[in-house]
Amino acid sequence: MNGFPPILAEINNLSKDQITWLLYSAKRFKLGVVPVGKYQISDTHQPIIATSFLENSTRTKHSFVIAIQKLGAMYVDFNAETSSLKKGESLEETLLTLSHQGVDLCIIRTSVSHQFDEFKTNPPIRIINGGDGINQHPSQALLDLMTFIDDGGEVKGRTVAIIGDCIHSRVAHSLMELLPQFGCKILLAGPEECLPKQLDSRLDTSMFHVTTDTEEAILKSDFLYLLRIQKERHSGPAAYYESYLHKHGVSLSRLEGLMANGKISKVPRIYHPGPANVGVELDMALLKSRHYRAHAQVTNSVYMRMSIIKAMLTNLGDVSSA
Amino acid sequence: MNGFPPILAEINNLSKDQITWLLYSAKRFKLGVVPVGKYQISDTHQPIIATSFLENSTRTKHSFVIAIQKLGAMYVDFNAETSSLKKGESLEETLLTLSHQGVDLCIIRTSVSHQFDEFKTNPPIRIINGGDGINQHPSQALLDLMTFIDDGGEVKGRTVAIIGDCIHSRVAHSLMELLPQFGCKILLAGPEECLPKQLDSRLDTSMFHVTTDTEEAILKSDFLYLLRIQKERHSGPAAYYESYLHKHGVSLSRLEGLMANGKISKVPRIYHPGPANVGVELDMALLKSRHYRAHAQVTNSVYMRMSIIKAMLTNLGDVSSA
Amino acid sequence: MNGFPPILAEINNLSKDQITWLLYSAKRFKLGVVPVGKYQISDTHQPIIATSFLENSTRTKHSFVIAIQKLGAMYVDFNAETSSLKKGESLEETLLTLSHQGVDLCIIRTSVSHQFDEFKTNPPIRIINGGDGINQHPSQALLDLMTFIDDGGEVKGRTVAIIGDCIHSRVAHSLMELLPQFGCKILLAGPEECLPKQLDSRLDTSMFHVTTDTEEAILKSDFLYLLRIQKERHSGPAAYYESYLHKHGVSLSRLEGLMANGKISKVPRIYHPGPANVGVELDMALLKSRHYRAHAQVTNSVYMRMSIIKAMLTNLGDVSSA
Repeated sequence: MNGFPPILAEINNLSKDQITWLLYSAKRFKLGVVPVGKYQISDTHQPIIATSFLENSTRTKHSFVIAIQKLGAMYVDFNAETSSLKKGESLEETLLTLSHQGVDLCIIRTSVSHQFDEFKTNPPIRIINGGDGINQHPSQALLDLMTFIDDGGEVKGRTVAIIGDCIHSRVAHSLMELLPQFGCKILLAGPEECLPKQLDSRLDTSMFHVTTDTEEAILKSDFLYLLRIQKERHSGPAAYYESYLHKHGVSLSRLEGLMANGKISKVPRIYHPGPANVGVELDMALLKSRHYRAHAQVTNSVYMRMSIIKAMLTNLGDVSSA
Repeated sequence: MNGFPPILAEINNLSKDQITWLLYSAKRFKLGVVPVGKYQISDTHQPIIATSFLENSTRTKHSFVIAIQKLGAMYVDFNAETSSLKKGESLEETLLTLSHQGVDLCIIRTSVSHQFDEFKTNPPIRIINGGDGINQHPSQALLDLMTFIDDGGEVKGRTVAIIGDCIHSRVAHSLMELLPQFGCKILLAGPEECLPKQLDSRLDTSMFHVTTDTEEAILKSDFLYLLRIQKERHSGPAAYYESYLHKHGVSLSRLEGLMANGKISKVPRIYHPGPANVGVELDMALLKSRHYRAHAQVTNSVYMRMSIIKAMLTNLGDVSSA
Repeated sequence: MNGFPPILAEINNLSKDQITWLLYSAKRFKLGVVPVGKYQISDTHQPIIATSFLENSTRTKHSFVIAIQKLGAMYVDFNAETSSLKKGESLEETLLTLSHQGVDLCIIRTSVSHQFDEFKTNPPIRIINGGDGINQHPSQALLDLMTFIDDGGEVKGRTVAIIGDCIHSRVAHSLMELLPQFGCKILLAGPEECLPKQLDSRLDTSMFHVTTDTEEAILKSDFLYLLRIQKERHSGPAAYYESYLHKHGVSLSRLEGLMANGKISKVPRIYHPGPANVGVELDMALLKSRHYRAHAQVTNSVYMRMSIIKAMLTNLGDVSSA
């Protein structure tokens, strides 16, 4: 196992072996194989980890904060509202300051897509991208993969339908880089204006299918991944959202209707990065049903983020040192 | 001792035995009987506790934060300003998310009275009400009772005068459910518009007396509990506040005048949930005097909240396991 | 060694011996002489430390937060935005409340100069001034002195040029009380309106020189300390800032030009309390050069603040107990 990179900005910063290691290590945390209580990353150095959420968040930030504490690290919340960044300091200079204060790793969310491109080589501090604009959200995609595997045994030969505003979704972009590496096909579905006209040429396009027909997506997939319709990013009329559930949203009755008609043999599991817009991308009955797996994603989020942080702070040499 | 309930929304969620246990356990924390340093609630699980103050607070929140740290628990501040609740997620769904992240207990303050009624049975996570609108503030009432007992030996047969806006005070409502269970009478005093026309029929009305005559309240009570006049809730003219101290406020000179006239044999102890409006419900001379016991309440607040948290997280089987 | 004072509002609250101790103790933290991991201030009491930044800050606050955690203390962030102070409570009453909650020490930043004068004797709680208006910022000056000594071996007989808005800079005021005690001269430079017409009579005026000629300051000093031009405090035209770099700012090319002309024998080291205004008081080339020592100041900030906190909480009796 080679050392983990000092920055996780995009899924492609990781090798397939490293991703496999992260899945294995996260599962060990989940199973409680690692001793209970605070287990230090190192016997001789208690790491200091900062979060800097320059864009609002709750579940991602809290999940990281809990992961940091479970790892026994020290934590500093770098408050964006009062930060030096607002006084005109560059992100690089701010990160250099954190580094010289002794901070080992910083988790950053930003509204600026590709903000970490300048740090591709030799970043001023170890960085985990907690979501950058509409570009990527790699830790979310990794915990989603963990959940698909938990639920389905494996993802090879399976299909994940991603339904919603695929071109503006950072988690969709991360999943598109991640899942095909593990033999999992992706079906992008949603309104025409939310689907890519053309796929990024760096992707293995044989693994993708694009459709505006949500029913087709449901019929052909093993896992349904619903995206949040970002009301804050669309300025359309209210009617847009009202009609969305009917056309592209997924309701429990719609799925049960497909079962009754023999079009599907079982109701697929539903995933969502949260928070869900009830009445838009899904209905309350589906959210309350056993098919809805968002809480399993939330549970895995803490273990996967512990795994990522530990890997980046220890530059693991071999599996036995876990 | 039966298990403590998973939610403390109102005083009546607790049995008298459970309240007695909380007083005993808080006193043990105060006396330092429990070993110094971090004492885990459990040997095998370090609990995670969240606070979510949807309404501003400082002393209540800080008191809980210190209690959480003294218990050796992990802490997550669920920041209301940036929360999923603002994105339209329901409180239930938000609490389910916290629960699946591994949070064991959440302390919530809200401006909505009775917001926890929906969680009476089977709450999504253990909850302590840190104040809900004008309904209740149970941990405050419990620490007040602890302070009355510390100061007076016992409360049976004593009278607490609650002076101020009794009908809009959540701590008054909690005290009204709490004190009569321990044989302590309550005298509600204040301007007519601040007093209940009729008492809640579930209360033991023989233990209550209502008066607009503040002097009567002073003469007949052992403990004077002054409420904060919520300037932010009243839109009356400034003159209202100026006349309040004269009519219903308590000043050191007023109390010493009653002593000089032989109407009282000693100056009663003064309590306040804080922060006090100096020049409204009391004057600076009284606040600076030895009769003012608000700091003793603050000291007890940490120990009582440690006691409540520990009881709710351990479902104590018997006293010896403390 | 006499006990440290309960309040560090100004440099003059400390004796020269106490300052020498702080430098020694901070160096021990930096060298790792104290065992790694959490070292308690006391074996029997885990202290509780609060920060209350009533004025925005990032590097000072984070540096203190990291110092607090490295000392193994409990930490409470007293959130100014939601504080009782906003409900009209006095600072004294707020600090008394913190004290009764068990808080041992509070670090306060405020926009009000001399706000701590009322606490000169018998403060309600131990206080470290984290910057009060334009008055003082003692912990910054102490860590600056530590850095000068790290870089130059000693400061006796050396000269520090402080360049910028000297009369409105709290760190300049602290340095002016601190450095002459250690035999270090100070040269105040900048635009005329930024320089004192007359020095405070309590200062040893033989140690000071004032000039509007920045070149003179560069030629005559061993250390160049650049102040941040507070754009938020000056409402002048943009042209003011544009011309500042030319007249009073320091650029790498200016320093190299002085070298080429034989006016200086080596480029002096540059210090800055941060965050720097690139293009105003210095240029990017200087900030990126090896002459710029602000990151060394940041590194020392954590160790010096650990040293100050530990000294104030332990009332050290002798060096061997460190």
